[in-house]
Amino acid sequence: MKKILLASTALVATAGVASAQDLGVALSGSAEMGIFDNGNDNSQFFTDLDVTFTMTGETDNGLSFGATIDLDEAADRGEPGRFESPDVQGGENMFVSYGGATLTMGDTDGAMDAVMPEMALAGGSLADDETAHGGFDDQDGHILLGTDSGLSFDGAGDGQIARFDYSYSAFTFSVSAEQLNNGDGIDYLGVDSGDSVYGLGVSYAGDFSGVAVEAGLGWQTISDFADTYGIAATAGLASGVSFGATYSKTNLEDDVVTVAGLSDDSIDHYGLGLGYEMNQFEIGVNYGKYESDDYEVSGYGLAASYDFGGGLEMQAGYGNTEADDDLFDDDGFDTYSIGLSMSF
Amino acid sequence: MKKILLASTALVATAGVASAQDLGVALSGSAEMGIFDNGNDNSQFFTDLDVTFTMTGETDNGLSFGATIDLDEAADRGEPGRFESPDVQGGENMFVSYGGATLTMGDTDGAMDAVMPEMALAGGSLADDETAHGGFDDQDGHILLGTDSGLSFDGAGDGQIARFDYSYSAFTFSVSAEQLNNGDGIDYLGVDSGDSVYGLGVSYAGDFSGVAVEAGLGWQTISDFADTYGIAATAGLASGVSFGATYSKTNLEDDVVTVAGLSDDSIDHYGLGLGYEMNQFEIGVNYGKYESDDYEVSGYGLAASYDFGGGLEMQAGYGNTEADDDLFDDDGFDTYSIGLSMSF
Amino acid sequence: MKKILLASTALVATAGVASAQDLGVALSGSAEMGIFDNGNDNSQFFTDLDVTFTMTGETDNGLSFGATIDLDEAADRGEPGRFESPDVQGGENMFVSYGGATLTMGDTDGAMDAVMPEMALAGGSLADDETAHGGFDDQDGHILLGTDSGLSFDGAGDGQIARFDYSYSAFTFSVSAEQLNNGDGIDYLGVDSGDSVYGLGVSYAGDFSGVAVEAGLGWQTISDFADTYGIAATAGLASGVSFGATYSKTNLEDDVVTVAGLSDDSIDHYGLGLGYEMNQFEIGVNYGKYESDDYEVSGYGLAASYDFGGGLEMQAGYGNTEADDDLFDDDGFDTYSIGLSMSF
Repeated sequence: MKKILLASTALVATAGVASAQDLGVALSGSAEMGIFDNGNDNSQFFTDLDVTFTMTGETDNGLSFGATIDLDEAADRGEPGRFESPDVQGGENMFVSYGGATLTMGDTDGAMDAVMPEMALAGGSLADDETAHGGFDDQDGHILLGTDSGLSFDGAGDGQIARFDYSYSAFTFSVSAEQLNNGDGIDYLGVDSGDSVYGLGVSYAGDFSGVAVEAGLGWQTISDFADTYGIAATAGLASGVSFGATYSKTNLEDDVVTVAGLSDDSIDHYGLGLGYEMNQFEIGVNYGKYESDDYEVSGYGLAASYDFGGGLEMQAGYGNTEADDDLFDDDGFDTYSIGLSMSF
Repeated sequence: MKKILLASTALVATAGVASAQDLGVALSGSAEMGIFDNGNDNSQFFTDLDVTFTMTGETDNGLSFGATIDLDEAADRGEPGRFESPDVQGGENMFVSYGGATLTMGDTDGAMDAVMPEMALAGGSLADDETAHGGFDDQDGHILLGTDSGLSFDGAGDGQIARFDYSYSAFTFSVSAEQLNNGDGIDYLGVDSGDSVYGLGVSYAGDFSGVAVEAGLGWQTISDFADTYGIAATAGLASGVSFGATYSKTNLEDDVVTVAGLSDDSIDHYGLGLGYEMNQFEIGVNYGKYESDDYEVSGYGLAASYDFGGGLEMQAGYGNTEADDDLFDDDGFDTYSIGLSMSF
Repeated sequence: MKKILLASTALVATAGVASAQDLGVALSGSAEMGIFDNGNDNSQFFTDLDVTFTMTGETDNGLSFGATIDLDEAADRGEPGRFESPDVQGGENMFVSYGGATLTMGDTDGAMDAVMPEMALAGGSLADDETAHGGFDDQDGHILLGTDSGLSFDGAGDGQIARFDYSYSAFTFSVSAEQLNNGDGIDYLGVDSGDSVYGLGVSYAGDFSGVAVEAGLGWQTISDFADTYGIAATAGLASGVSFGATYSKTNLEDDVVTVAGLSDDSIDHYGLGLGYEMNQFEIGVNYGKYESDDYEVSGYGLAASYDFGGGLEMQAGYGNTEADDDLFDDDGFDTYSIGLSMSF
């Protein structure tokens, strides 16, 4: 459900668009053209396009509010027009903000996803190969539930999340909730798992003698099923080099372990990222691994980009996934994409 | 089919947007966030969003023309992309206007719906609880056909309506037609019902010594099935108090009564509304009842809103439906919603 | 698949919009209202509307780039949200251009369609009756594959075309490719047909002593199935009269003829067009015929329009299709439409 749960990077970009526009409805767009291999060993044409509607308002006494949806989320090939129904999330999100306090609902990150920096630090690619490999953690879902990569439980319900953020100095504190079954309880794997995902997190963004540091600590839980905590940090040097590391761990309830026939009551993820930016050129590489006694998958990703200016980039990406421990074994699969990325 | 048939209030809002914009395509938007209970006794998150495309043009000699569609009508969860087909209506409407004469086609009201004021006079709510209860008449459909609340037959075909309005002084005269089966005849309940819905109406909007009066008289028919007439009026005082009443009656053809196994050849609806506006605060309450020897359903609705300015409102709504005569019986169901409504 | 494959005329219009706007995302729109008969002998209401998103960018060193999608292509009644998937084409296209060289991908014409002028020379209609009759060739597909009218093989795969154009003086040279099965081979009618459609073309647009001449010569092939060449030219006189002729021929591989049980290994199409423009008035007529020993279909189309200015036109169209050789026989079917066309 990557397309449903808005990544933190996208939120930043959206905020940028909004502030640069007058109040009302603003349009921005993107398009990509090139070739790619989605893992089936065929190289094929790649064409993609999207339009984003960004709505911004302000009350007389200084409350700001806004909402966003993308055209591809509105049309939604998987479940067309899902955003039309107020009881589920179909790509729409909206917020109200006053001072350092912001309440966001809909297609937004849970607290853990919101605070933890990701490991794709530079470059980008048409097919997001560098973040789509099996070892990546975007904190957008949970591998055990099959909702997306990550260990955060976001999207365990209908993806309709409410998150409250409070910024104080360089810190942002976040609390989030997602209903698993529109207010009713739900069974996962036959275990009565409660009715909500809850999350807590704190993030830091600051500067230590010229080194830009971002760090986050998050926790999410489905109370009768499992909980996860995670910690991640990145550092960006003035030389253009950036690096980071991430670690998260899910602890499963005993019931879940028994019913699912697992031998291990925990799942670990760790990841590393490295990026380099020089003038118009960017390159990033990341590695990650999910690990339990029952399950192991790792992968690495590469992304490079060259910026022509005015919104046009040449991009190339590569992702490699291994289902066992041997990184360069032939058992896994890999994907690549190369072409032009446009933003308008 | 409430979402398909544009309510009169929405038409007014759209006109406002258009006149405030240059010719071409203008965007406006709305979003809502909060919680609601849709009648299943669970409180759940509510997130909704929409974008409206309003197109406006003018010829050299003073003909004006325009068209509108909403993003949620274009995506359309029920029947995706329906607006793409010119033989049915999927949320699109367009008009051409000269002097007091206007021809509108597509997602527009039939003559009866166009002329009769509704009883939700003040306030509003995220889930439209105040107009979604079983006793409300929005003149958008017919309860016997199950197309929507009301007794007007709008939407008995594909919702593709043509309406001609002529304004003269404080009066507007309206004539409308909707094909039931794209030019072919149709059977309802086994009765050969003809091929069209026709409608006639006249409305009045004026001022009597400081009291703003709106009134409408309408008639619609499916010639071999049934006809309905309706009358409604509202008055708005300078004190902020407004009130209104509505009455409509469907007379069924004898064939229909026999085939449907009914004992009564008529269905009545009456309704009352009361509103109060004071500075940023609005509250409205309405009551309505459908009645025949075979069928009885009533309900009441409440809506309250507080306007923060700039397009942001706090809104709360409640609706209660009773399927028998006892208004405060436990047999019925109720809905509520509360949260923030944004317009951009 | 006419709606998927952008006709050359639409490309021209889009370019006009883009150049009149600032860089970024621009909106234009259209709407149509009237009545039509789609060939079933019922006259019914016609309502249609569309919004086009045109995105335009420019790098610092003079590369221009852009992308387009229509709202009805995004929603797409046939396959909702198809544009969201980068491996297929769902109405989106994008280009990058430098000097006389342009690379376009997605919802664009193959080389043959791009270079050959069509025979609907003046006027227009709500339901495109003048181009939808069975004898018309819009070079958008292939009648043997049933993808659309024409003999070009465009859309034989997923409609995701890559075309490179190079303009030199009054000439434009075009090369195109479309994958038939996302990089894999495909069987048509049981014949292993290869993996791609390839196309070549050259067009000319110039002026001979006041006569505006457009001409094109194109060739497309599915290497192990068939190939087609086509030639077409139109001339526009200063008096407002224009005329043109088109001819194309498909040669089928012997295997295909055998397997499909055909007796003729070729299919011919020829067509003629005539147009007249005088002040606000335009009228066009065209005739075309597909012919082989196994198959014969012909048709003619009429379109007339009156321009009120400001984007409003009255339009009427008529199309007549005959499945045998006798043009005025009663065996065929005809369609008409009449009403108002609006552009915003």
